[in-house]
Amino acid sequence: MNVITTKKELRQKITEYKNKNVTIGFVPTMGFLHEGHLKLLDEARKANDIVVLSVFVNPLQFGPNEDFDSYPRNIKRDEELAKLAGVDLLFSPSVNEMYPNKPSYTVTVTSRVHVLCGRSREGHFDGVATILTKLFNLIEPNRAYFGMKDAQQVAVIDGLINEFEFPVQLEAVETIREEDGLAKSSRNVYLSEKERKQAPSIYKSLLAAKQLILQGERNKTKINHLITHIINEETDGNIDYVETLSYPDLEEVEIISGKCIIAVAVKFTGARLIDNITIEVQ
Amino acid sequence: MNVITTKKELRQKITEYKNKNVTIGFVPTMGFLHEGHLKLLDEARKANDIVVLSVFVNPLQFGPNEDFDSYPRNIKRDEELAKLAGVDLLFSPSVNEMYPNKPSYTVTVTSRVHVLCGRSREGHFDGVATILTKLFNLIEPNRAYFGMKDAQQVAVIDGLINEFEFPVQLEAVETIREEDGLAKSSRNVYLSEKERKQAPSIYKSLLAAKQLILQGERNKTKINHLITHIINEETDGNIDYVETLSYPDLEEVEIISGKCIIAVAVKFTGARLIDNITIEVQ
Repeated sequence: MNVITTKKELRQKITEYKNKNVTIGFVPTMGFLHEGHLKLLDEARKANDIVVLSVFVNPLQFGPNEDFDSYPRNIKRDEELAKLAGVDLLFSPSVNEMYPNKPSYTVTVTSRVHVLCGRSREGHFDGVATILTKLFNLIEPNRAYFGMKDAQQVAVIDGLINEFEFPVQLEAVETIREEDGLAKSSRNVYLSEKERKQAPSIYKSLLAAKQLILQGERNKTKINHLITHIINEETDGNIDYVETLSYPDLEEVEIISGKCIIAVAVKFTGARLIDNITIEVQ
Repeated sequence: MNVITTKKELRQKITEYKNKNVTIGFVPTMGFLHEGHLKLLDEARKANDIVVLSVFVNPLQFGPNEDFDSYPRNIKRDEELAKLAGVDLLFSPSVNEMYPNKPSYTVTVTSRVHVLCGRSREGHFDGVATILTKLFNLIEPNRAYFGMKDAQQVAVIDGLINEFEFPVQLEAVETIREEDGLAKSSRNVYLSEKERKQAPSIYKSLLAAKQLILQGERNKTKINHLITHIINEETDGNIDYVETLSYPDLEEVEIISGKCIIAVAVKFTGARLIDNITIEVQ
């Protein structure tokens, strides 16, 4: 595995790959790899000749009151996991390498961002879109892999690729779950024992909503009520939001039709958990 | 020559080229081709296997009070000229093809834009950067060609390519001039006979400034004064600006050093003319 920290060396390797006409699968991350990332690498490994992993904690996507400084980092461990996952090239630049100066060119995103988690994270997706624009241009991947756990991010990147015409195929990879259905997350360890037992009710409520839709219900309010009811009955968590939106446009719908997403965020004492399902109806 | 109007067909052709490992030279224009454009095509022809010309009047770079609707268009003539210039692929999409919806992803440029012509064209370069991001991703050129007549545009695109890491080489092509030194422009025909005779003094003043610098003068104010003096003495035009800036950063300098640009805009009754020279000093 090549471990590269400069854009110059990265470009040399990418040019080598391009000259050999191999396909490149790209998994962009902020590091501190967990099973979710390994699943993305696994999918990339299956479909491409070369797998490129980036590890970069992108300051541009953190708000002034967010945890850029304390965001967990462990590049040595990430390197080991990447090697085991069959990564060919690990790109882990410094902040100074990616932003030698205050950025003068940024991407501004105005749709798909003012709902769900984006509601409380002004500018977050501009930062995501800006760093991905740079990374796509540096790495020139055929496919880029993102987890559906963060469905809004996937929707925003889908828009970025489409509107900016990046010659990149977006691969949205299904959320991986514990045996009891809880979406895997490094934050799950912060739950109390009691909360951990309650947390699977989040996914359970989403499945119940799906069942209701499959039975013919199309009224968004009724669907959201069912979810709210189950989570309130079965957990001590406080619901941050329950939203049913069109997907990937993330627009408000009253009567659901076509592809839609049902997404929830629930605050427990130790952690805020998010989860979602997508469903396509006639 | 292939004449293509849809992104889908364009991508098919570009994929063909990429599979053959040929180099692509790209000349983006708003059409109504003149000698300046032909010079760009000529340079592209010399250095690349394939020459791609785009003709697209980009609404995003026109302000609300600017002349998007009345901007001159003549695609038939452009096609003929392109064929004569040895263009391989002419891409001339409709507005609807490039922007099927109101754009939700745009590039925001905050440096190099608040000087020279950009001062009075709020958002203009955001529009330029956004369409070029799309076109670079669609056409995947090895080299892209722009005329130094619009030096600020070249500087902004230089920044776009560098900051967004586009794998594209920027080629800045020298301004072509009439025998008397006047920079060629489709607007020159709007000058009265008297103004046309005076207009070469613009370039003359820039050359005098260069001469002064070569003789050792480094004070920006003195340089700008000389230019102002010559243009006021020798023409009936009104100076819009005379600016000496670092290049390509376009930052204010008092004592010039390194690479700099001296740029002027002069309003005549029939037309506003711009011109510039760059010079590198120790």
